[in-house]
Amino acid sequence: MKNICLIIEYLGKNYCGYQKQKNGISIQQVLEQAIESALAVKVETYASGRTDSGVNALGQVVNFETNTTIAPEKIAVCINRYLPQDIRVIKSFEVDKDFNSRFSAKSKTYEYRVVSGRPLSVFEKDRYAEFNYTLDFELLKKACDKIIGEHDFSSFMASKSNIKENTVRTVYDFGFERQGDYIIFSITGNGFLYNMVRIIVGTVLDIARGQLNLDAIDQMLMGKARAKGGKTAPAEGLYLKAVEY
Amino acid sequence: MKNICLIIEYLGKNYCGYQKQKNGISIQQVLEQAIESALAVKVETYASGRTDSGVNALGQVVNFETNTTIAPEKIAVCINRYLPQDIRVIKSFEVDKDFNSRFSAKSKTYEYRVVSGRPLSVFEKDRYAEFNYTLDFELLKKACDKIIGEHDFSSFMASKSNIKENTVRTVYDFGFERQGDYIIFSITGNGFLYNMVRIIVGTVLDIARGQLNLDAIDQMLMGKARAKGGKTAPAEGLYLKAVEY
Repeated sequence: MKNICLIIEYLGKNYCGYQKQKNGISIQQVLEQAIESALAVKVETYASGRTDSGVNALGQVVNFETNTTIAPEKIAVCINRYLPQDIRVIKSFEVDKDFNSRFSAKSKTYEYRVVSGRPLSVFEKDRYAEFNYTLDFELLKKACDKIIGEHDFSSFMASKSNIKENTVRTVYDFGFERQGDYIIFSITGNGFLYNMVRIIVGTVLDIARGQLNLDAIDQMLMGKARAKGGKTAPAEGLYLKAVEY
Repeated sequence: MKNICLIIEYLGKNYCGYQKQKNGISIQQVLEQAIESALAVKVETYASGRTDSGVNALGQVVNFETNTTIAPEKIAVCINRYLPQDIRVIKSFEVDKDFNSRFSAKSKTYEYRVVSGRPLSVFEKDRYAEFNYTLDFELLKKACDKIIGEHDFSSFMASKSNIKENTVRTVYDFGFERQGDYIIFSITGNGFLYNMVRIIVGTVLDIARGQLNLDAIDQMLMGKARAKGGKTAPAEGLYLKAVEY
């Protein structure tokens, strides 16, 4: 058996999220059906993690075992023949037997894409979040810096999450770039709680527009109070960019 | 009666083109239904011109007469409530009684967006044309320059067009910008024949990849022979950018 790794991109709009679910079409389900059609065998796949409904990926990582005779790097093309146009395998290659997309991951990087100061164009729908306010970018930078480091991020976790265990995570880097009307956030960490990136982005944006004080972040990091934070930024701005191993 | 002008953007993918047709849903039909819902009255609209199936617009211009009491600049918001997310009125304002979107136009500008040297990502589908070849950009510049000016463009017209009259048009400007993997063509002219922009772009790209000689354009401009030209570049890369009055 070979252990095959896939790098996948997808537009989340039409799916109930990455992971298989009873009530909705998931990326995983469509991907596994395409692999089955391409390789003529059922496989079980392992992803680096789930992404929520509407969340996009530039570099989701998936692996599965197969005894196909197709060359590993050709498998991407074979699978793509059976995928809809909003999911695409960018790359396929063989990895070590003990590689697991989820458990071998050292860190993950997410991007969050915002259109600032004007409404979204029809071409940006499902690909960007709209934040139509005047922002203080120096304040935004200060807010981002406060997030970096090892913290208990329980206040940056959706209340419907049922994680009760360890809510300490390390954010290695968090910042943003401005490109015209776009603000592109990038965040790298050793792990992220449920909705954590979206709550972080919603909070720093609310600080930058003067809706929250900068010390709201300190309060959240110390007080473990989700209520002090900003809105959860919408799913469509979020991209799983890369998984580092 | 007031003469109201709308600036409209749309993603062409889901439509049979701008103009109303029996076999398919057109932008015009959806727009007129939205205007009817917003203003509670049927209107007849006039656009700067049709766009083909799959072609996009950043600045289509449409006008219609109405005796609504809604302030002209508020009409956009009212109509947008009834439009699907791939069509949007950017702006509405009152114009002179004798303004007609089509006949008052002095020139039009189209953009053509290409991803060069790699496959399209899922996020670029329906928004860019893929041209996955190595290109000589100096040659591309020379090819573009040959298009500028007043010419008989009958060789740059789809053969299924039934225009038999005057096929002379003036291209005021034609060039491109590179932004990373993107090539953004921009062309301004006093009018364009059926598929003219897409055949021009297909031809200059085929020259830049060494598939056609630079003098193919001279032959086309003199010999009136569509067969000497390049492929018709696909609809999804084309944007009606602006109409100048």
